[in-house]
Amino acid sequence: MSLADDLAAQQRSISVAEFFERNKHLLGFDSPTRGIITTIKEAVDNALDACEEAGVLPDIYLSIRKQDRDIYRIIVEDNGPGIVPAQVPYVFGKLLYGSRFHQIRQSRGQQGIGISAAVLYAQLTSGLPTLIISRTGPDQPAHLFSVRIDIETNEPDVVREEKVEWDRTHGTRIQIEFRSTLAAKKRLIEYLKYSSIVNPHARIMLEMDDETVLFDRVSDEVIACPESIKPHPHGIEIGQLRRMLHAGSGTLEQFLTGTFSRVGKKTAEEMCRGAGLSCTAEAHTLSPEEQRRLVETMQAVKVPPPPVSRCLSPIGEDLITRGLEKEFSMDFIRARTRPGSVFSGHPFIIEAAIGYGGKLPPEGNAQILRFANRVPLMYQQGACAITTSVAGITWKNYGISQAGLPTGPLLILVHVASTSVPFTSESKDAIASIPEIEKEIVLALQDLGRDLKVFLSRRDRNRLQEDRARAVCAILPDLAAKVSEIVECELPDISTIEGRIMRKLVVRKRVNEGVVTLEARNYTDTAASLSLYTISRQPGEAASPPPDFTTEHEGEFTQVWQVSLGAGEVWQTCYGGSGRGMIEVRGVDPRTLVLVDQDDDMDT
Amino acid sequence: MSLADDLAAQQRSISVAEFFERNKHLLGFDSPTRGIITTIKEAVDNALDACEEAGVLPDIYLSIRKQDRDIYRIIVEDNGPGIVPAQVPYVFGKLLYGSRFHQIRQSRGQQGIGISAAVLYAQLTSGLPTLIISRTGPDQPAHLFSVRIDIETNEPDVVREEKVEWDRTHGTRIQIEFRSTLAAKKRLIEYLKYSSIVNPHARIMLEMDDETVLFDRVSDEVIACPESIKPHPHGIEIGQLRRMLHAGSGTLEQFLTGTFSRVGKKTAEEMCRGAGLSCTAEAHTLSPEEQRRLVETMQAVKVPPPPVSRCLSPIGEDLITRGLEKEFSMDFIRARTRPGSVFSGHPFIIEAAIGYGGKLPPEGNAQILRFANRVPLMYQQGACAITTSVAGITWKNYGISQAGLPTGPLLILVHVASTSVPFTSESKDAIASIPEIEKEIVLALQDLGRDLKVFLSRRDRNRLQEDRARAVCAILPDLAAKVSEIVECELPDISTIEGRIMRKLVVRKRVNEGVVTLEARNYTDTAASLSLYTISRQPGEAASPPPDFTTEHEGEFTQVWQVSLGAGEVWQTCYGGSGRGMIEVRGVDPRTLVLVDQDDDMDT
Repeated sequence: MSLADDLAAQQRSISVAEFFERNKHLLGFDSPTRGIITTIKEAVDNALDACEEAGVLPDIYLSIRKQDRDIYRIIVEDNGPGIVPAQVPYVFGKLLYGSRFHQIRQSRGQQGIGISAAVLYAQLTSGLPTLIISRTGPDQPAHLFSVRIDIETNEPDVVREEKVEWDRTHGTRIQIEFRSTLAAKKRLIEYLKYSSIVNPHARIMLEMDDETVLFDRVSDEVIACPESIKPHPHGIEIGQLRRMLHAGSGTLEQFLTGTFSRVGKKTAEEMCRGAGLSCTAEAHTLSPEEQRRLVETMQAVKVPPPPVSRCLSPIGEDLITRGLEKEFSMDFIRARTRPGSVFSGHPFIIEAAIGYGGKLPPEGNAQILRFANRVPLMYQQGACAITTSVAGITWKNYGISQAGLPTGPLLILVHVASTSVPFTSESKDAIASIPEIEKEIVLALQDLGRDLKVFLSRRDRNRLQEDRARAVCAILPDLAAKVSEIVECELPDISTIEGRIMRKLVVRKRVNEGVVTLEARNYTDTAASLSLYTISRQPGEAASPPPDFTTEHEGEFTQVWQVSLGAGEVWQTCYGGSGRGMIEVRGVDPRTLVLVDQDDDMDT
Repeated sequence: MSLADDLAAQQRSISVAEFFERNKHLLGFDSPTRGIITTIKEAVDNALDACEEAGVLPDIYLSIRKQDRDIYRIIVEDNGPGIVPAQVPYVFGKLLYGSRFHQIRQSRGQQGIGISAAVLYAQLTSGLPTLIISRTGPDQPAHLFSVRIDIETNEPDVVREEKVEWDRTHGTRIQIEFRSTLAAKKRLIEYLKYSSIVNPHARIMLEMDDETVLFDRVSDEVIACPESIKPHPHGIEIGQLRRMLHAGSGTLEQFLTGTFSRVGKKTAEEMCRGAGLSCTAEAHTLSPEEQRRLVETMQAVKVPPPPVSRCLSPIGEDLITRGLEKEFSMDFIRARTRPGSVFSGHPFIIEAAIGYGGKLPPEGNAQILRFANRVPLMYQQGACAITTSVAGITWKNYGISQAGLPTGPLLILVHVASTSVPFTSESKDAIASIPEIEKEIVLALQDLGRDLKVFLSRRDRNRLQEDRARAVCAILPDLAAKVSEIVECELPDISTIEGRIMRKLVVRKRVNEGVVTLEARNYTDTAASLSLYTISRQPGEAASPPPDFTTEHEGEFTQVWQVSLGAGEVWQTCYGGSGRGMIEVRGVDPRTLVLVDQDDDMDT
């Protein structure tokens, strides 16, 4: 027997389950520590997707309890539409099985691997099957399944199946046990926090042995489930076209308009003409050479881009901003949702946000929050196209220092929403380096960078002006004293001048020959609303404009004016009287206020 | 019909081929540019593996030719053992099929995906099947196959099969056409260069439209093919043990000693006792609870580590050093092969090398060469555990500056050899973050770092000493002049002192009352060999030691002494005579020589 025969005897087919059991790190099960996060992530992804499809507000319950030794029991329960009993074993007990792989629309799960990987990991490390309860409606019984994966065939092995009582009217509950640790608890909580930022309609509760955490919904609006679209002709390769042609029937024109998005009768005719083919030819009879010509023409003919807004569900600038403001205290925050774009026929949208200052750590690398299809990415930051795009920008153009990544009190959020997110591995930790995606990320961040630069230079200018103003104000009293000495006048009150220089709100009372003048000048650059009180033993007479209300209490008269002042505006009221008594200003930050009561000195 | 029924109707099984067609970037086909390198890499891996198994010196022919438009034709031909006709369609036309997945030993291909991924990519982008010719021996005909992959079933589709004439007596030739570019030609050549460094027994020739490159073998020694070993009991999970038990027959003792490496009768008995089981129990009758106890005891009982050296084939320190010296000009080069280690039951060995100085670029990040099982890793450096390990070391401890990665004229090579290299994706570009592997990489580099530090500080000390010596020598003449003026003596010859300070080789001739003394003093820190010539009109008399040879030519007498001097040593010879004439020193760098002929002044 030749060596080739020897070698042939060793050749074997490798089952997908066997492959991923060996390469479990590809699925996010590279360490016991990660196991819990990966499992929770996959189960929560499924729950959110299913609720979105069913149009219900997600209510997800998670539980992590330590069992014997290093075995943990994870329970994930949702109020989704449930899974029909016949499908349960396949959804959980077979890798590469799912409903979303063949649909062209944004969804969290795409690969048909996620949760069955956790089932695989459980039977490998604890030897235990996974328990699933699912119920599809109040008039249906709940079914309990105990499922394993047959490693050699990648087919489900149902250990037990029975009808059970369950208090939810619809939903799914899985219970899974594997070897793990809770060492990454902080990261798990972070993952849930970020998930809740981009899924404000979800209520997620996590119970652990020592702690219960609730991420309640902040919005009662159900997220619209993105629609599936047909493939776009520009993203089609000859191999795919061939399969589509073989599967189809009817004329070439019917095939083109029926199979692809954005291809109407006119475009189909143009494609046929360009390829030298008849519109009425039977689609499945094309020769390989004709197929080749057709695919080339399909790329060349102008076709509008795919209907991005229908199949994608971006988070939105407002929601991103509010979500970040809720979790981080920052001086500046701005978000952008880019227009839709396409790579290899897959529509995608980039969203980004930049936050600056406040309580962000002033030192070290910027904090980068990465999201793909509304799912936070928690691992492999260094391997992600988002990170390399961030590092590739010249941040000093925007007033930010940089050492590879930008540094300082900076937060960067990037969300990639696509019908097919190109992850670098099945564990969906990082986005592959796709030029079209990287370009859009860079554009979004540069756009935000310009806004940040405006903010920073205004802040710097303000600081500079304030420094100068302080310097001027410091010498002002001496200057005033000197001038009054020279011109032999009384020392003037310079506090209103200071107020003006320091850009404050100046409120002043002057009394001149029985007429009291109250004046408010807004030297700040924002509008201000204030309440101006005078409290005196004598009522003011015929004020113009009159006070908004007056009171008398034990011989003390209080007059109140409600004043709204735009930046730079002046307000005044006059009334007869001695002007004796107090004035008081409420409703403004005392640090921005200069109050000048010229009556004071005479009175006291 | 409920929503769950609607959703159930969309559930489908996803074929592996379909999954990877969509996610082709996972296989290293993320861009047309990469396609060629990935294909060549997979085919060369297979060829080298097969030649290793067959014990032949690999002779690999590669050809890349541009066809129509952007379609390239890649041919890879080897002199391996060939593939029996019945296996050819599966090896090339089915993903997850191979001979090396189930063997526990170091090999380049491990996953059974590699080359069939290229077949998949070809039929997707060019629509063309792949042509394979294979022959298993001189008495066998060569078979030609034209193969596709049926995407929906992941089964081979043989378009054509026939016997053909072929001039190789054994080997395999594949011809594959897909859409690509040669934009990454430089990287391709680099890949072949590095491959050739770690496979010095291979001859690889690449023909392209405009260029032919040959990487000839530099060693005629066939690399020994690593042996398969049995799994180690410490790396076994309960899920695997259960399958093994079910598959086996015989007693528990027979099962343990027969299935695992390093488990003899005594160890098996200890395991059975620890688990409270009888050695004579039938292995496949164990209850789940007994299995659980057994797997726990198997981890707990002391077992020697797996026989690393049999199943792994490290490159070796000498070969690494020579390979790098051949390709790079450096002042310092040192390599380490670490002892074998184990992660999750998989044996592995780390090898590393550090090069410094010479013609390495003086600025920027260190150059990092990454290898896994003798295959250069060309992409995703940032995502690789090798890179993060390098970046995690405090290089300033070893006199190297650092900005994330170490910087300066530094080259770092790391080779991970394992029975199962944990790649971060199927494209095998980067090694996953496995603590055991990272620890070994760090240990190897720290070890080399210490050597580098010794080298650098010696170099720096030498530089410092030289600087000081130069400073001293600069003032020495003035000092000598001043002293001779004060003590009213003749100005002494200070060149020997200079020689001593500057750590040179000082050769001096002195004449005193008819006796000539020739003296050589080696003030350097290395041994020196020199030839000392005297050329004179008078023969020297009775030299002691005598010259090694003397000649006379037209009345000129030449005497020659061959002198070997260790660092710091002194040599002398004396003879009678006037000492007139010339002396000459040959065989040493003139920059390290000080020649003092005290006769000179008198003579001229």
